[in-house]
Amino acid sequence: MAINKQIHLVSRPQGEPGTDNFKLVEAELPALRDGQVLVRHHFLSLDPYMRGRMNDAKSYAAPQPLNEVMIGGTVGEVVESRNPGFQAGDKVVGMGGWQQFAVVDANQPGLLRKVDTTHIPASAYLGAVGMPGVTGWYGLTKICEPRAGETVVVSAASGAVGGVVGQLAKARGCRAVGIAGGPDKCRYVVEELGFDACLDYKLHKDTKSLATALKDACPNGIDGYFENVGGMILDAVMLRMNAFGRMAFCGMISGYNGEPIPMQYPQLILQSRLKLQGFIVSEHMNVWPEALKELGTMVATGKLKYRETVAHGIESAPEAFLGLLKGRNFGKQLVKLI
Amino acid sequence: MAINKQIHLVSRPQGEPGTDNFKLVEAELPALRDGQVLVRHHFLSLDPYMRGRMNDAKSYAAPQPLNEVMIGGTVGEVVESRNPGFQAGDKVVGMGGWQQFAVVDANQPGLLRKVDTTHIPASAYLGAVGMPGVTGWYGLTKICEPRAGETVVVSAASGAVGGVVGQLAKARGCRAVGIAGGPDKCRYVVEELGFDACLDYKLHKDTKSLATALKDACPNGIDGYFENVGGMILDAVMLRMNAFGRMAFCGMISGYNGEPIPMQYPQLILQSRLKLQGFIVSEHMNVWPEALKELGTMVATGKLKYRETVAHGIESAPEAFLGLLKGRNFGKQLVKLI
Repeated sequence: MAINKQIHLVSRPQGEPGTDNFKLVEAELPALRDGQVLVRHHFLSLDPYMRGRMNDAKSYAAPQPLNEVMIGGTVGEVVESRNPGFQAGDKVVGMGGWQQFAVVDANQPGLLRKVDTTHIPASAYLGAVGMPGVTGWYGLTKICEPRAGETVVVSAASGAVGGVVGQLAKARGCRAVGIAGGPDKCRYVVEELGFDACLDYKLHKDTKSLATALKDACPNGIDGYFENVGGMILDAVMLRMNAFGRMAFCGMISGYNGEPIPMQYPQLILQSRLKLQGFIVSEHMNVWPEALKELGTMVATGKLKYRETVAHGIESAPEAFLGLLKGRNFGKQLVKLI
Repeated sequence: MAINKQIHLVSRPQGEPGTDNFKLVEAELPALRDGQVLVRHHFLSLDPYMRGRMNDAKSYAAPQPLNEVMIGGTVGEVVESRNPGFQAGDKVVGMGGWQQFAVVDANQPGLLRKVDTTHIPASAYLGAVGMPGVTGWYGLTKICEPRAGETVVVSAASGAVGGVVGQLAKARGCRAVGIAGGPDKCRYVVEELGFDACLDYKLHKDTKSLATALKDACPNGIDGYFENVGGMILDAVMLRMNAFGRMAFCGMISGYNGEPIPMQYPQLILQSRLKLQGFIVSEHMNVWPEALKELGTMVATGKLKYRETVAHGIESAPEAFLGLLKGRNFGKQLVKLI
């Protein structure tokens, strides 16, 4: 009987999480029952939302249970099937979690989705053509609603979500300005992803300094903002928002360990007649087909670019995840399992 | 030649304004030119937005110029007309400012509007059937978008805007909960205006205490919030907002003198998938006819109630205005001029 290495959450962090919150477990793979499929994972997706699941707090999603496999998106290959809808060799995307294999009740709709890896790399289904891509697509098109000629700003611009936001904004005729950490990420955002400008927030000690830099980068002000970070970056952007600007709240990673991140100038919501809206992409499944069609076509034709940081082996997942929370990744953080 | 007493703004406040920012001026009334109308003001409206106009800061509206008549809504009677559209005796609403008389170029559309004072008291056109009423109507119906059975909360609930918000919410089948300052105002909000509950924010020293009281008053959480105040009240309400709640930002009087009023938990925008939207009613003139029709009918039939605090004589306007900023008024603050 085959062994399935898994990572469990074994304790909840107080503040910053550490590797001791996780534990490597070797489980035996059970025999398949009727309707089930055995998937061997090729890639595991690491995403900031997982930090929230580690807490026991009331939130929009149930907390990750202790002593169970960490939740997570996966792409892999069917190695055994007792389900007529799948056969060995099928490439599939699912929520298999932090483990090498998953046994999936494939009759439940939506748990496992067959994907084409001829024109699109398998790993892209965890990034630009997956949940992060649709996240960027939703926040930009449904909340920021940019019109050609407007200016769109996105924080964490070199990340899996941010990179998509800026490139989609460019495709819609907007000026796209990123905010990222460090000169390498900023260069990549402009030179490879094609943003018009990118600001390195690490060069700015306070809101005023960053707001001044934003003024230069956004000479016509900001009409749409896609928020992944919060804190000082949010304050600086708010100071530059144009009247009737739209702000999509996707993430606030600067406060994920419980740090206070007050919004300094809520008066601007009124003075600039802003709309701020939070969203979770899994609550908008109806737009996924439309979004994935656009994103898939753009990736297949080379019009949507992305970068990946790949850790190797299931054992590396906790360290890679902690690095993601500190911005040590560059683009989409993956764990390669085979 | 008749004398027209006026109040001018003569200096800009640093922080809290005082009576020395204003000056009483006696001007001579000029002879009318063709197209002009002379209006004798019966009531002058005092509103929180005027505080913003006293500053020289960049804002959505041009600052009130120094050494000119303070801006303000007025209702009065035509005493002389050289315009075929108006005749002596017509009751009219306009933006005549803090003065006894106004000479109006009545050919300019929208400057002067004839009103019926048979079924609706003249002063109501500065309150429930005027700008404050439409403000409440717009924020509630266009931003909070309440459905029957939902819970709507409004701050400054006994004020000219807040009172309308709660009564309209009740008319739409919602639970209406007010927040106001002091037991008299709270009793009035429940007993006279028909809200389901009203919390006295003065009884609560911090956000947590107010949030606990809100939990009791809103057992099903809060779906729509109409913001007039900001600060601690906003923080407490945000903690109780339901998923997909809507928050209309109309005013933030707690910060009008430049006090910092940070929003403590912007993470909730994301966690509760909230929509926050600021608005200024004068930018939505297209909805005024619909809003005024509903509000006018409700006032004429006794279904929309309101209270007025009336100061007497143009000389009393500055003191009355400063009192309004401190919440010393009870309902709509007016100055009666005849």
